[in-house]
Amino acid sequence: MSELPSFTKIVAGLSDSIPFVGPEAIERRMGKAFELRLGANESAFGVSPHAVTAMQTAIRQLHWYNDPENHDLRTSLAAHHHISAREVTIGAGIDDLLGLAVRAYVEPGQAVVASLGAYPTFVYHAEGFGCRLISPLYLHDGGNDLMALADATRAADVRLLYLANPDNPSGTWYSADEIDRLLQILPDRCVFILDEAYVEFVPPEAVPKIDTSDPRLIRMRTFSKAHGLAGARIGYAIANPHSISAFERIRLHFGVNRVAQAGALAALGDSEFVAQVVGQVEEGRREYHQMGVEQGLPTLPSATNFVTFDAGIKDNADRLLKGLTSRSVFIRKPSKPPLDRCIRVTVGTPDERALFAERLVDAWREVKG
Amino acid sequence: MSELPSFTKIVAGLSDSIPFVGPEAIERRMGKAFELRLGANESAFGVSPHAVTAMQTAIRQLHWYNDPENHDLRTSLAAHHHISAREVTIGAGIDDLLGLAVRAYVEPGQAVVASLGAYPTFVYHAEGFGCRLISPLYLHDGGNDLMALADATRAADVRLLYLANPDNPSGTWYSADEIDRLLQILPDRCVFILDEAYVEFVPPEAVPKIDTSDPRLIRMRTFSKAHGLAGARIGYAIANPHSISAFERIRLHFGVNRVAQAGALAALGDSEFVAQVVGQVEEGRREYHQMGVEQGLPTLPSATNFVTFDAGIKDNADRLLKGLTSRSVFIRKPSKPPLDRCIRVTVGTPDERALFAERLVDAWREVKG
Repeated sequence: MSELPSFTKIVAGLSDSIPFVGPEAIERRMGKAFELRLGANESAFGVSPHAVTAMQTAIRQLHWYNDPENHDLRTSLAAHHHISAREVTIGAGIDDLLGLAVRAYVEPGQAVVASLGAYPTFVYHAEGFGCRLISPLYLHDGGNDLMALADATRAADVRLLYLANPDNPSGTWYSADEIDRLLQILPDRCVFILDEAYVEFVPPEAVPKIDTSDPRLIRMRTFSKAHGLAGARIGYAIANPHSISAFERIRLHFGVNRVAQAGALAALGDSEFVAQVVGQVEEGRREYHQMGVEQGLPTLPSATNFVTFDAGIKDNADRLLKGLTSRSVFIRKPSKPPLDRCIRVTVGTPDERALFAERLVDAWREVKG
Repeated sequence: MSELPSFTKIVAGLSDSIPFVGPEAIERRMGKAFELRLGANESAFGVSPHAVTAMQTAIRQLHWYNDPENHDLRTSLAAHHHISAREVTIGAGIDDLLGLAVRAYVEPGQAVVASLGAYPTFVYHAEGFGCRLISPLYLHDGGNDLMALADATRAADVRLLYLANPDNPSGTWYSADEIDRLLQILPDRCVFILDEAYVEFVPPEAVPKIDTSDPRLIRMRTFSKAHGLAGARIGYAIANPHSISAFERIRLHFGVNRVAQAGALAALGDSEFVAQVVGQVEEGRREYHQMGVEQGLPTLPSATNFVTFDAGIKDNADRLLKGLTSRSVFIRKPSKPPLDRCIRVTVGTPDERALFAERLVDAWREVKG
């Protein structure tokens, strides 16, 4: 063996950087566990008891493969959204579906548009499939710059626009009307990926009506947030049957865990649990906001299960992240300007929030010197 | 909207055919459940009790994301195989890893080699990434034609050879020496994917020594068969760190379910359970073999958890499949010559085998007229 078999040109050109370093990896590096895990926007309010029961039953049948058609869940989602099952596809989380969307629509060398600092896994897939990335800046107030995004899609060879509404990492959101208008002005050749991972937490006026008539629109949703099934890896896309057919041609047909299928189905049916989670999260957001006011760390408006605190300048935010990490608190910090002056904190339980408040006050005092 | 956004050339050219129609889809079509599910080579002997316990605990933590590095499982697998954790990567089953391998090594238009009728999901991924397929025939006795496979890799632009040992759908296998020899004669540019999904069931002399020094060799294994975790979707690849680095650049970092991680870790530690499953499967294979002798349906040699029965000609096998389906037995039938004269039956529990024997005798009598 003299020669290494070569990777494809695209894969050979990729860096070894990954979308997220998990908290477990940071813990292994530190040699101890975080006392507060508030960095991954996981639900602090657990899993619906109905979903737990369904998953415990599913475990007993785990020697059987999952239904590759995800029939029961697709059918229930279709009923839930008043659409046809041909307008839904299931994936191992939105992360999985984003990769499929890039692969289905964008040739290597063609371009995709997303705000600079938007969800890193989208960028990971775009680069992984050899696409060019066009990245308008976020507005200073933390909103996506919808006009800049729309303008960017008019460049040659742009095939996809990615937007999260509400947004991650800022927590900000736009109304259904504004989202609809953005879709209207996109070029015909450009597909609009609307990531609605946090949709359960937004006011109703921020949720565009479900309408699958426009084949340019693909909406993605997940059971990872309000439903508390982040570790189950299950999400779905809603789109025109033509668009769904592309996913069906390339997706991993046996890719969704049987326990996740059962859990998601039960969680979907437990709207009472979801409503309760949303209520608790709202309370937590108000508490974070109040704390921000008191501490001179203003919060960005949020319609998610996290809150972004504005530390004014990047250096302060960097030091705040460091101070919280050293106080055994896992949070994240946007890496790109203008949001790199902020930190992003998941809404915890009342106990977690009380402990977080202590640590934050302490760390922020240190930063301010 | 006048125009549909177009798919990539490769995706536009794909058919809507999928690797496997699941038994659930057949059941929905029939309007009733199969009484015997012996078609997907799922383990009839369930999940290790230790794995069940570990997974029940994991469910309680499912609002947390999985560790994207799969650290604990990778470390345990490395210890198990006396290699480094940098020589292991985890995926959502071998299906997932096969797609990544094709994507990492084969440019669109380049070629891959696999026996005609080999594992359909490999073919699905090869086509899905726009590769050409070179498919030598199986030998008439059901073995892969190793010389024909090696010859085929010498054609221009062949980047991957896929071989399952033991083989699916035939159940046949080659010795470690024969596999090693095949690797030796492959061109430097050709990567050898050795799918060892059924490795726990083979005699020791059919398992090449674990040796990651040759970057052309990627071995894939799964928890879906002997460990009884098919529905969990978790498998792994063993290879040179250089090859593993390609997977790390493109894999879905949060792709493996947390319950699956916990279950696989516990299952790996329960070698007693696996040994017991292997013993029960051996007993079942002997029983199937004996039944084949008695019924004039000779079996191919098998070192897997299934047995392939030879119905002599394709028409007989087609009719036998139909007869068994109408008798509420789910089995599969290889679709390509020369193995399309056979049916493939999973080893069931003693009760399932007794019921299968009744139905088979009945259906086969009908076929022979």
